[in-house]
Amino acid sequence: MKHNILVGQSGGPTAVINGSLYGVVKRGLETPQIDNIYGMVNGIEGFLNGNMMDMRTLEENGTLPLLKTTPGAYLGSCRYKLPEDLSDPVYPQLFAKFAEYEIQSVFYIGGNDSMDTVSKLSRYAAKNESSIRFIGIPKTIDNDLVMTDHTPGFGSAAKYVASTVREIAVDASVYDNKPSVTIVEIMGRHAGWLTAASALARKFEGDNPVLIYLPETAFDKDRFLSQVQDALKKTTNLVVCISEGIHDAEGTFICEYASEVGTDTFGHKMLTGSGKYLENLVKDTLGIKVRSVELNVSQRCSSSCLSGTDLEEAVCAGSYGVDCAMDGKTGVMITFERQAGDSYEMVPGTADVNQICNEEKVVPSDWITADGSDVTESFLNYVRPLIQGQVEVPQKDGLPHFIYRK
Amino acid sequence: MKHNILVGQSGGPTAVINGSLYGVVKRGLETPQIDNIYGMVNGIEGFLNGNMMDMRTLEENGTLPLLKTTPGAYLGSCRYKLPEDLSDPVYPQLFAKFAEYEIQSVFYIGGNDSMDTVSKLSRYAAKNESSIRFIGIPKTIDNDLVMTDHTPGFGSAAKYVASTVREIAVDASVYDNKPSVTIVEIMGRHAGWLTAASALARKFEGDNPVLIYLPETAFDKDRFLSQVQDALKKTTNLVVCISEGIHDAEGTFICEYASEVGTDTFGHKMLTGSGKYLENLVKDTLGIKVRSVELNVSQRCSSSCLSGTDLEEAVCAGSYGVDCAMDGKTGVMITFERQAGDSYEMVPGTADVNQICNEEKVVPSDWITADGSDVTESFLNYVRPLIQGQVEVPQKDGLPHFIYRK
Repeated sequence: MKHNILVGQSGGPTAVINGSLYGVVKRGLETPQIDNIYGMVNGIEGFLNGNMMDMRTLEENGTLPLLKTTPGAYLGSCRYKLPEDLSDPVYPQLFAKFAEYEIQSVFYIGGNDSMDTVSKLSRYAAKNESSIRFIGIPKTIDNDLVMTDHTPGFGSAAKYVASTVREIAVDASVYDNKPSVTIVEIMGRHAGWLTAASALARKFEGDNPVLIYLPETAFDKDRFLSQVQDALKKTTNLVVCISEGIHDAEGTFICEYASEVGTDTFGHKMLTGSGKYLENLVKDTLGIKVRSVELNVSQRCSSSCLSGTDLEEAVCAGSYGVDCAMDGKTGVMITFERQAGDSYEMVPGTADVNQICNEEKVVPSDWITADGSDVTESFLNYVRPLIQGQVEVPQKDGLPHFIYRK
Repeated sequence: MKHNILVGQSGGPTAVINGSLYGVVKRGLETPQIDNIYGMVNGIEGFLNGNMMDMRTLEENGTLPLLKTTPGAYLGSCRYKLPEDLSDPVYPQLFAKFAEYEIQSVFYIGGNDSMDTVSKLSRYAAKNESSIRFIGIPKTIDNDLVMTDHTPGFGSAAKYVASTVREIAVDASVYDNKPSVTIVEIMGRHAGWLTAASALARKFEGDNPVLIYLPETAFDKDRFLSQVQDALKKTTNLVVCISEGIHDAEGTFICEYASEVGTDTFGHKMLTGSGKYLENLVKDTLGIKVRSVELNVSQRCSSSCLSGTDLEEAVCAGSYGVDCAMDGKTGVMITFERQAGDSYEMVPGTADVNQICNEEKVVPSDWITADGSDVTESFLNYVRPLIQGQVEVPQKDGLPHFIYRK
């Protein structure tokens, strides 16, 4: 019997999610027991509709190495949730398709929801005595998966955030004889890891970003205004970093304050973000020069600030996943365990995917200062190694050279 | 008598404005007739207040080469406009300061307003038989200065825009089985050069960004909606690029449509941009998945997409400016003239600053398609050479290594 493998991507993309795909394909090609390597196009939803591709073509046409530095999800993604009820007819449909293509191992690259898919498929397999192995390969810029030191995708996003906030601080300081406030809105609805990484932009104590607000701490707009006023006494051109998901003590998102503004001149309802709301608040209340910058999707799709460490680990998560499947493991997610010692060293491992898929890891409260406007040195020691190392992205016609499925 | 020189920066920063500062300082150090090299801190306004520094210190402490790849304005900037009336007492004040420091040549790096400063100072000098030379070194991401093929600063901003729009298109295509619209707002209040450069992001005809709107053409929201609907028939995940300064036939900015939304729940007036307005318009009118991305200040301060060509020309503008001053030129701005032929070649020259300072160069109408939603191949041939060449930015602790005045 053949040992064919199947790999898919799911959820939002990251700068290195294709690095993990590369890792699976490359190790698949190197493993003699493995025959065909199939990719699901648009995740498990696309696979259900028969949407697949042969990954060996990338090796044959010489474009496989470009996959590593191509952002986005090469195979396309989906946000399809498998039914909770394992007796739903979709499961035998899926397993019939696995049998049709003689698939022995399935690798699913994604975050929380994707691990839920791995959990359900592996439980269905156990229940029905199927020998197919299901391995979760973690990715998320949010770094919110439990049972792993961190998640591939976070390091590059953190490097992008820190570099960009550094440059924004430089830009803000140009008129350094006139006070100003710049509010930077960073991704993270429930977990503030990425916003916390903006602290890496500082080059000395007290440097910008002076104030950092995470969703782990309740946001109070009056305290915020008084902290801004205090900070302006020491810093002429103040940079403030906020998570998109900051909310008040009642759990109301700050961006919801703004979403109630009503309609514009043409009767369209206006929606805006937390940063824009706070920009208007500072302008109206303090009467100071203020602007807001939403870092937006470049946080998860920019190839310009790839972390060498992150990319290496993303590839490793894919190749180690293949090794685990060949060892007979199933129902697990690949994890990283930080080794004790002075130098940074990560060892890959596995954890039961059922313990991961419905949990969310937030920034520990002792890594946030008591006044809720900064992170501690312990957090910086945790995050600093994750952004190290530069990656040279191949160029073509003056732009980064990516590969595309079609 | 000594020949001391003075250099300053003014207006908004670019990614390579410090490249021109480097060019002035480096050529100043290489020129035996030149004695001291002074920098104005915060432009002519700072100089009036006695705010200066000795630029030789950068050579002495070994940080001068880092200046080339440090974004922002190292010397700080100002938005100070000299009085129209040349009999204003500020002029003799300034010239007394020039005499005090034995300054023979002044270099002012900036855009339109800075050239206005060079014009006034050189006219005052001519009127009062002063031998001090005033040279304008052009910079702007907007590319709106006349009498030069293009302006240093534009190439790197164009490269940033094209790279980022390419990555946003990749990100948008991840759920390629579901239709979506992404609206990207790009800097440019009156001139659409930078927005037009987003066309470089295309990898085949008809690729994203499918629709591009510049302020050179009147924007009509009904035509926009119908062009979006047409484009969605061919492109599932549509990317639309707009200039921040798009306006209707009456001259009303599209962002002003949105600024009339009224107040939020706390009574603060909400302001937002053209992209956010159009996002809400598409959502309400077409009921399709839509998001907007404002590229914001990274367009002018990101060091991650420096164009090698642009940086080289920015340095050249500075060093050639010194050569011109030593040749006795004054009241001129450094220009670039494109040479005929197959390969890209620029020759530096000079133009009368009085013919530049109150003019604005916009994208020619024959470089915009008749339906106002795209640019032509002629524009692409013009812009493509300007984004070529990669620049390696020195790194420190995982982040770009910049230098700071303090």
